Amino acid sequence: MLRPNPYKEKWMRLALSLAKKGEGKVSPNPMVGAVLVKDGKLIAKGYHRYFGGPHAEIEALKRAKDKAKGATLYVTLEPCSHYGKTPPCTLAIIKAGVSKVIAATIDPNPLNSGRGIKILREKGIETEVGICEEKAKKLNESFFKFIREKIPFVTVKAGASLDGKIATFTGESKWITGEKSREVAHNLRNKFDAILVGINTVIKDDPKLLPPSQRKFLRVILDSRLRVPLSSKVLKDQKKAPTLIFTTPKANLKKMRILKNEGIKINVVEKEEKVPLKKVLSYLGEFGIMSLLVEGGGEVIGSFFEENLVDKIYLFISPRIIGGKNSLSWVGGKGIDSLDKSPKLKISSLKRIDEDIFIEGYILKNGKYSKKHV
Amino acid sequence: MLRPNPYKEKWMRLALSLAKKGEGKVSPNPMVGAVLVKDGKLIAKGYHRYFGGPHAEIEALKRAKDKAKGATLYVTLEPCSHYGKTPPCTLAIIKAGVSKVIAATIDPNPLNSGRGIKILREKGIETEVGICEEKAKKLNESFFKFIREKIPFVTVKAGASLDGKIATFTGESKWITGEKSREVAHNLRNKFDAILVGINTVIKDDPKLLPPSQRKFLRVILDSRLRVPLSSKVLKDQKKAPTLIFTTPKANLKKMRILKNEGIKINVVEKEEKVPLKKVLSYLGEFGIMSLLVEGGGEVIGSFFEENLVDKIYLFISPRIIGGKNSLSWVGGKGIDSLDKSPKLKISSLKRIDEDIFIEGYILKNGKYSKKHV
Repeated sequence: MLRPNPYKEKWMRLALSLAKKGEGKVSPNPMVGAVLVKDGKLIAKGYHRYFGGPHAEIEALKRAKDKAKGATLYVTLEPCSHYGKTPPCTLAIIKAGVSKVIAATIDPNPLNSGRGIKILREKGIETEVGICEEKAKKLNESFFKFIREKIPFVTVKAGASLDGKIATFTGESKWITGEKSREVAHNLRNKFDAILVGINTVIKDDPKLLPPSQRKFLRVILDSRLRVPLSSKVLKDQKKAPTLIFTTPKANLKKMRILKNEGIKINVVEKEEKVPLKKVLSYLGEFGIMSLLVEGGGEVIGSFFEENLVDKIYLFISPRIIGGKNSLSWVGGKGIDSLDKSPKLKISSLKRIDEDIFIEGYILKNGKYSKKHV
Repeated sequence: MLRPNPYKEKWMRLALSLAKKGEGKVSPNPMVGAVLVKDGKLIAKGYHRYFGGPHAEIEALKRAKDKAKGATLYVTLEPCSHYGKTPPCTLAIIKAGVSKVIAATIDPNPLNSGRGIKILREKGIETEVGICEEKAKKLNESFFKFIREKIPFVTVKAGASLDGKIATFTGESKWITGEKSREVAHNLRNKFDAILVGINTVIKDDPKLLPPSQRKFLRVILDSRLRVPLSSKVLKDQKKAPTLIFTTPKANLKKMRILKNEGIKINVVEKEEKVPLKKVLSYLGEFGIMSLLVEGGGEVIGSFFEENLVDKIYLFISPRIIGGKNSLSWVGGKGIDSLDKSPKLKISSLKRIDEDIFIEGYILKNGKYSKKHV
């Protein structure tokens, strides 16, 4: 089957749209959708609704009941073959008498990774992999990185002028991009498990860093000397979204106690003067944070790029000029010393949002996506 | 005739394509094209070929001979009504017995500016203005500014990283954008009468600053202390394109003599420490320079923006990150102190050139194009 098959793609697109309904609710699991089809007709739908809940395939099979027998199952990710929070889906599929399984992509989870398909084949079930594969991988790009590298997929978001500035030399920064861009940017937070900013951004802008809708969401602050003002908005609403501060032994112990008493989580990175980003990512990974949105400021973003830790960017560009040698650029830090070291991007989307320009891109590593496994 | 008329637009587009053939040869005249049409058929074509040569209408009328009688003349700019290098076109049109004149736009030249149309009407010739007007004005955007303000239309061109940088903190700048972008950028020089850079660019990059094809082309250097190295490439090829250096009384007189002996034009701006850009533009205007391309560096571009002298930009963005507080941005200088003063652009084109992004835009002044008369 070399040519694209519009019927198969239609059903897989439906399964993908079901999968997306789990966004923000299933992490650190992948979003998965499934549909059962027989004689060209839809029998049942299902998707993974919440972390720990039944898998998409099980939801669809449950709804289909006897009708699942002889049907084709379209599923956006290879069915699991291992016992996790739930029994393996392969067992249920075999038991239901499904005659064919079409998966968009293989599960990158090393516990599965082709085993699910193999088991189904061994039981005489016809299988096919690769329908809408690119879309399926993009949908779960965070999961694909996280499951293998145990650190979150890192996306940098910035809003800058045409000349890359995020503030005038006097420090004025509100607002550079337009209202619609800011709304889009705010809504993007819903795609992430956590948000991260540096302490300068907290001091200067006093942001809330909350997502637009209630969900699992961690607010992370890098604050090596624990300078966070006790009145900061980011310290409020701990029930909506907890705040985790990474600091160093330079932090004032009394202030640390006060913060802890208010329910703020604090992680002290020993033997360091500055919070090391790789340790932050490993820690967040252990914490089950699959996707991280880095919102600034320029110094923090610069460090993420210098350490080659960025996977993706969302850049909103306002068609205006700020200029100035001493005005802040969205990527600060030291910068790269030679052009051949400069991180390059594959632009996946370039469009207008009202007057602004919106760029979505993936960092290439060794000439490939950082999501090299994708 | 409120609705667009596809027939009229077809003929006017032909006239516009003829006009464009004069690019680089007619300045400081506008590019103009004309076609004569009778009974839906093309009778003759013409365009303004070189400065001082016959106007487009005359070229077309000459070719049409007797057939011009009763024909409709499509012309991209209102026919002239005054004696310049050639007699008024209105006279020739009347004499040829043309029955209708359709002009894309009124001539912004204060000597004409509606008078041509008025004269034709008074002689009983039907007239219409406004077919493909926007295209016609864009084609001659430099002329439209120059004829009224007596200074060149200023376009800034830059090639930068996604974060607005034109060099690493170590000074490496070659090459940031891709090969195809650089080729497009080089070819853009053919649209301009002159190119301008600051002395730092000459010292650092030693560019030739020549256009891709032989034409009227002036190379302008801002060099307040006359630091230009005598071996600079920009001082060669004076027959292909003369070089004009703006300097101040700080310049070394002996060096000035040497340069003058080599045929380099030098303009000393008295009583100034730094070459004032407005004086540069006025001088270039007197010199007949209708369009100026500012190619850098960051400090010069920054000054042009700060003094609100930019009309248009061509920005090539390479999808890479350079980063660094101390790496050069494409707009340097002091920058604006508050966001409400930041120059805003109307983006007229946003597209990909291979991996790069290309942005063409016009600076808005008081919420309008700088070409407010356009």
